[in-house]
Amino acid sequence: MKHLISIESLQKDQIQNILDRAKYYRDAMIDGKWDRKKLEGKIVLTLFFENSTRTLTSFDIAAKRLGADVVNWNAEVSSLKKDETFSDTIDTLSAMEPDAIVIRHHEYGAPDFVSKRVNCPVINAGDSWREHPTQALLDAVTILQEKETLEGLTVSICGDVAHSRVANSNAKLLTTMGANVRFVAPEMLMPQKLPAKGIECFDTLEDGIKDADIVMMLRIQKERMDRSEIPDDAAYFNKYGLTPERLKHAKPDAFILHPGPANRGVEISDEVMDDPTRSMMKRQVANGVPTRMAVLDMLMEN
Amino acid sequence: MKHLISIESLQKDQIQNILDRAKYYRDAMIDGKWDRKKLEGKIVLTLFFENSTRTLTSFDIAAKRLGADVVNWNAEVSSLKKDETFSDTIDTLSAMEPDAIVIRHHEYGAPDFVSKRVNCPVINAGDSWREHPTQALLDAVTILQEKETLEGLTVSICGDVAHSRVANSNAKLLTTMGANVRFVAPEMLMPQKLPAKGIECFDTLEDGIKDADIVMMLRIQKERMDRSEIPDDAAYFNKYGLTPERLKHAKPDAFILHPGPANRGVEISDEVMDDPTRSMMKRQVANGVPTRMAVLDMLMEN
Amino acid sequence: MKHLISIESLQKDQIQNILDRAKYYRDAMIDGKWDRKKLEGKIVLTLFFENSTRTLTSFDIAAKRLGADVVNWNAEVSSLKKDETFSDTIDTLSAMEPDAIVIRHHEYGAPDFVSKRVNCPVINAGDSWREHPTQALLDAVTILQEKETLEGLTVSICGDVAHSRVANSNAKLLTTMGANVRFVAPEMLMPQKLPAKGIECFDTLEDGIKDADIVMMLRIQKERMDRSEIPDDAAYFNKYGLTPERLKHAKPDAFILHPGPANRGVEISDEVMDDPTRSMMKRQVANGVPTRMAVLDMLMEN
Repeated sequence: MKHLISIESLQKDQIQNILDRAKYYRDAMIDGKWDRKKLEGKIVLTLFFENSTRTLTSFDIAAKRLGADVVNWNAEVSSLKKDETFSDTIDTLSAMEPDAIVIRHHEYGAPDFVSKRVNCPVINAGDSWREHPTQALLDAVTILQEKETLEGLTVSICGDVAHSRVANSNAKLLTTMGANVRFVAPEMLMPQKLPAKGIECFDTLEDGIKDADIVMMLRIQKERMDRSEIPDDAAYFNKYGLTPERLKHAKPDAFILHPGPANRGVEISDEVMDDPTRSMMKRQVANGVPTRMAVLDMLMEN
Repeated sequence: MKHLISIESLQKDQIQNILDRAKYYRDAMIDGKWDRKKLEGKIVLTLFFENSTRTLTSFDIAAKRLGADVVNWNAEVSSLKKDETFSDTIDTLSAMEPDAIVIRHHEYGAPDFVSKRVNCPVINAGDSWREHPTQALLDAVTILQEKETLEGLTVSICGDVAHSRVANSNAKLLTTMGANVRFVAPEMLMPQKLPAKGIECFDTLEDGIKDADIVMMLRIQKERMDRSEIPDDAAYFNKYGLTPERLKHAKPDAFILHPGPANRGVEISDEVMDDPTRSMMKRQVANGVPTRMAVLDMLMEN
Repeated sequence: MKHLISIESLQKDQIQNILDRAKYYRDAMIDGKWDRKKLEGKIVLTLFFENSTRTLTSFDIAAKRLGADVVNWNAEVSSLKKDETFSDTIDTLSAMEPDAIVIRHHEYGAPDFVSKRVNCPVINAGDSWREHPTQALLDAVTILQEKETLEGLTVSICGDVAHSRVANSNAKLLTTMGANVRFVAPEMLMPQKLPAKGIECFDTLEDGIKDADIVMMLRIQKERMDRSEIPDDAAYFNKYGLTPERLKHAKPDAFILHPGPANRGVEISDEVMDDPTRSMMKRQVANGVPTRMAVLDMLMEN
């Protein structure tokens, strides 16, 4: 594995290796014992072409926990503003020989394009609505804190599935690992083409989460509502918001995931979100750091 | 001491301990001898919700002088822009397990609120008009370079006292340490409620700094003038600007402090500001680094 | 050498020393063997008053390759916005005692001004249209990868010479080192006063690059065209764009330099820019890192 561009390009054993390494770092951090100089003298260059602080901060902390230096390149004030082409910008940054590049880009395929032009590992921190591989990995790490295996689990991914890179990467990872994946969304927010085989589709939350082991809620973006049959926040919440009552349709020990930031009272109620026995949101964020440490470590160790 | 949220919450001996440690670091830096790896492997997360480069840079340098890594979180491009609640943002960042958080926020009480939600030390880098504890500490360190003790000194805090977190934190620290504090301001800029007992109030600079040991000038903000009886810069300078003539009312060896950035020709004349025998402004900034090193060290050493 | 403010202020042997050290670091980085802790515990403060990511990132990486910490001060959110004077801002930052300052400023002389107020080495990362010394140094390093010596080489600097700090610094360095320098530009973009003795001026690209060893193309800025006799991109390219045909006027083994970012199809054609046997653009960027390591090392080692 030279880069981490997509879940789609990973084999089952590669995914398992990353999950194992992530679990190793999670446990090591609890004990306070890991090699804090593993990446000493290495430079991780972050290229974020979309605003993000959550994912950027998580990668920044992960890299520094392994002793790497981080250089944050700011797209806003860059030569791209001077009409430099994207490939010339990438060639320029590559010539400075960073030891790894972490990229987020609004266009599909940008991380893959970059990986073919540079001499260092490239990690996709989210591109378009297609892939966000480290999010799917950290979600799997989180599920595996509570469940023995992903195999045979029923995972319902609910909300704006069509525009969600989180949904796409998760659907691919989970089906590869043997879980049963459901998509739950109003018609306008359901993808036209499913990212993996065997995905079942539902248009009501009640049916979609029935007997599910994991309910993964997605952020709904207001600009998306206008174009669906759902006119506003309250209407969305009425039909697709996850409340304690609706959650009863899932298995009694079902857990809730959400990639954040959440819209309280839109896709999820305060009661569900703030219930520490059901909501895994804080753990997802916490697991993001060791998961990204695992990826940085595995790609940069040579 | 788990956090540094306010001067108000500190006992006299706690203040003294910080001042002693700050002095230790100031002297150690002059000799070039201190433990540059004291905080190696630790991550300080800075959360600045108000623009500031002076205080942010000072904390950034202080943390790095002790070997810590610094992650600067940028409020401008954060999930808050995506309508995430403040507490959800804090919970997210806390889940990433930084080793300390340095926060500046325009709302009163935000640092205290954060300290109750997270598992690491929280340092208030300025909240609303209420507290800026590290500024008051570095001011005390600066005064103590010239004076044996704070006890019995007369310190006149002059200008826009009502809106100044610097004035508030200083008034509390100085009265706790036994100094006599005066507030000098036009009526509209005098606080309705005094932050500590024993503060004397004056509405002319001449009376207010009479026989003072220390004259602390505050930055006047133009938008504040409109709402006071003072119509413009020149009028303010005429009445409240510190000139060499007015300074004669203070003790012959009185020193001038100003938290910066200063408005030359508004609250202070060029002559006073640039007189190295009277103005301590550069020393204040210089002392900011060892003072913040002391705070970081004391809070993070366990 | 205490600071690096300009090429103009350097003697020939000082330039040679920097070039030698840059070459040392370039070779050491290829072998992966250099002192990665040379500047451990030192803080490099970057002050960029003009947007730049290329030069800033290059300095950032260079400093970290030597183990230094980097503090990026952001002019956009600084006290300058609160009407603090430039000299007060500099005094404040200087009081925080960084170990070196790297400054880019739109006003001529700002780096020199700063160097006289602070107690640490100051490196000019570009000021106005006058000097960009590290660019000229890295260009010389790049030329010397292919040519034995700068002495006697003919170097044609082409395009918007009048407004280019790159042209100015290069002309000074190259003439000091014994090269023959030509300026090639339409009249409106030719400087009124030449920066060094012996520079020959041409107003057609064909004549200007005749038998040249090195052709250095400059970025043309669109706002400049309006004021020259050249109305638009296509007209500029027709007359001054470097194409494979025009390049035939230079020596058969002539190399192309460009400081970037390039305007493809304006000052340079895709064919020339993307020809790895002629274009040295990626090498220039790559050499930027060891050149800046050399400068940081030489100025900060004491």
